[in-house]
Amino acid sequence: MFIDLFSPSVQHSLDLAGIFVFAISGALLGVRKNFDIVGMALLAEVTALGGGVFRDLVIGAVPPAAFTDLGYFLTPLVATVIVFFLHPEVERITAAVGVFDAAGLGLFCVAGTTKAYDHGLGLTFCAVLGMTTAIGGGVLRDLLAHEVPSVLRWDRDLYVVPAIVGATIAAVLIRFDALTGSTSALAATVAFLVRLLAMRFGWRAPRAWNRRSTAAEEV
Amino acid sequence: MFIDLFSPSVQHSLDLAGIFVFAISGALLGVRKNFDIVGMALLAEVTALGGGVFRDLVIGAVPPAAFTDLGYFLTPLVATVIVFFLHPEVERITAAVGVFDAAGLGLFCVAGTTKAYDHGLGLTFCAVLGMTTAIGGGVLRDLLAHEVPSVLRWDRDLYVVPAIVGATIAAVLIRFDALTGSTSALAATVAFLVRLLAMRFGWRAPRAWNRRSTAAEEV
Amino acid sequence: MFIDLFSPSVQHSLDLAGIFVFAISGALLGVRKNFDIVGMALLAEVTALGGGVFRDLVIGAVPPAAFTDLGYFLTPLVATVIVFFLHPEVERITAAVGVFDAAGLGLFCVAGTTKAYDHGLGLTFCAVLGMTTAIGGGVLRDLLAHEVPSVLRWDRDLYVVPAIVGATIAAVLIRFDALTGSTSALAATVAFLVRLLAMRFGWRAPRAWNRRSTAAEEV
Repeated sequence: MFIDLFSPSVQHSLDLAGIFVFAISGALLGVRKNFDIVGMALLAEVTALGGGVFRDLVIGAVPPAAFTDLGYFLTPLVATVIVFFLHPEVERITAAVGVFDAAGLGLFCVAGTTKAYDHGLGLTFCAVLGMTTAIGGGVLRDLLAHEVPSVLRWDRDLYVVPAIVGATIAAVLIRFDALTGSTSALAATVAFLVRLLAMRFGWRAPRAWNRRSTAAEEV
Repeated sequence: MFIDLFSPSVQHSLDLAGIFVFAISGALLGVRKNFDIVGMALLAEVTALGGGVFRDLVIGAVPPAAFTDLGYFLTPLVATVIVFFLHPEVERITAAVGVFDAAGLGLFCVAGTTKAYDHGLGLTFCAVLGMTTAIGGGVLRDLLAHEVPSVLRWDRDLYVVPAIVGATIAAVLIRFDALTGSTSALAATVAFLVRLLAMRFGWRAPRAWNRRSTAAEEV
Repeated sequence: MFIDLFSPSVQHSLDLAGIFVFAISGALLGVRKNFDIVGMALLAEVTALGGGVFRDLVIGAVPPAAFTDLGYFLTPLVATVIVFFLHPEVERITAAVGVFDAAGLGLFCVAGTTKAYDHGLGLTFCAVLGMTTAIGGGVLRDLLAHEVPSVLRWDRDLYVVPAIVGATIAAVLIRFDALTGSTSALAATVAFLVRLLAMRFGWRAPRAWNRRSTAAEEV
């Protein structure tokens, strides 16, 4: 059912695709915040590469891939130029961007888990780092843009949970020695679908606040 | 007078205690900021482990202890669940949380100094990293929660200074080859007491602003 | 025409000069934000050393120079004391501070590029890290002070571009095996002058926003 999505060369193409869609979201936020093109490019680079750089520093894979692979570095610049010239069009296809971003989320959480395992981390921490790889860039994007990180806000659809689901499936597959190209693709697809469903149906996580008072909504 | 607080197994228990109280403060801020339970958990993890992760990256101890020790990872999740269900009660005992946080501060500044020394840093930088270990998680907590870092604000009681005191005592003890379990406990206790006194008597550090104008309070 | 600015001992003095002027800008922002002296010192240290620490973590040069060289650590404290006692005077010479900051920018982007090359990075990434070294501290300063990073804002004169220019020249010089003390000084001087010209003539980068609507200025 699944082609071998995680062979080295296919994996690299998928990485670039994930980097591209994350960079689009960074550059678009730069437009919304009224930053100039330099700020857009910085935000695009950080959004696309920040999670992976953090993962690589933690596992001791230095210099991080973002600082050795020209494709990783140039892709966000391409995304910036596209947004710079076409941003009303890109904004208009926000729904499509959301779908691509969900795809990036799925790819990154599985790739991050796998890379952490290759560097000898325990399975729980492989899943933690896979999740961190997927959400880290977006957190840094929001910090730099002076916004409350989207992943922390109760009024946003589930984002971290799909990443946890995908990373956990990948870790379980590794545990049972069943991680192949096909099963990796399956794990990424599940994360992708959970994210799409969360967007479609507005799934959200509970707040501690709510258990006391439904009248506290104005807080 | 002091039991051997810094034997390996006792040290690990104290680390977990420090991680727990810092995680409580992170999860509580998540409640105050109206984050959902995922946001609370992220904030608890970052508050409890952020300082140590930074220290370990700086000294080259990768992967950081936070990514190899399951207890370190799970403790903040336990703290999150407790705050999620009991947060009004936890809020009510804020004074107690402050005392525990002061204990965590004392423990972390000494443990951070010691670990930096074990990795060959000069004594001044051991103290600097000990201080950083103690305050780093709180700084990251405030950044993620979109607040001015508490340690920078003039209208908060001394927090960095107790950490500097404890880390400096530990470094001086190392210098004179006098760091034992008992003297480590003494250094942590001094930092703990200085922090308690700062909270009790509202000790604050001077602002440059003040020396010109006492009428500038409204700034 | 140029003396040998990049011999080891001269390089170290120039590093300290760059650290000093960046620390002044950090401490001054601390005064403006009404932080106490501890907050001013933290902000001075982070502004002066943050870019270099990030670079060293990325290239695997741990512990970073900021944690092994006492001069690097003490210089921001000296800057803090000066600003603490003399801040109205320092404010008054803001133009001079801007010139010194431009000099620091020039020195750091070249020094960062060179150090990255010494650790085996590709030339493009040497330039990227040189640029990051120069702007990183200021970004961290603004994050900690709860401000939109200055380098992202469209209404600030070019800051990243001069750093890119200097780092790129240094990388090209390395490529043609022409990096000497004199040519390094030349690269730093060009970055310095581009920054001065940007300040003098209010050079700014374009915003994507502008191409649609000049009436959108109020956004």
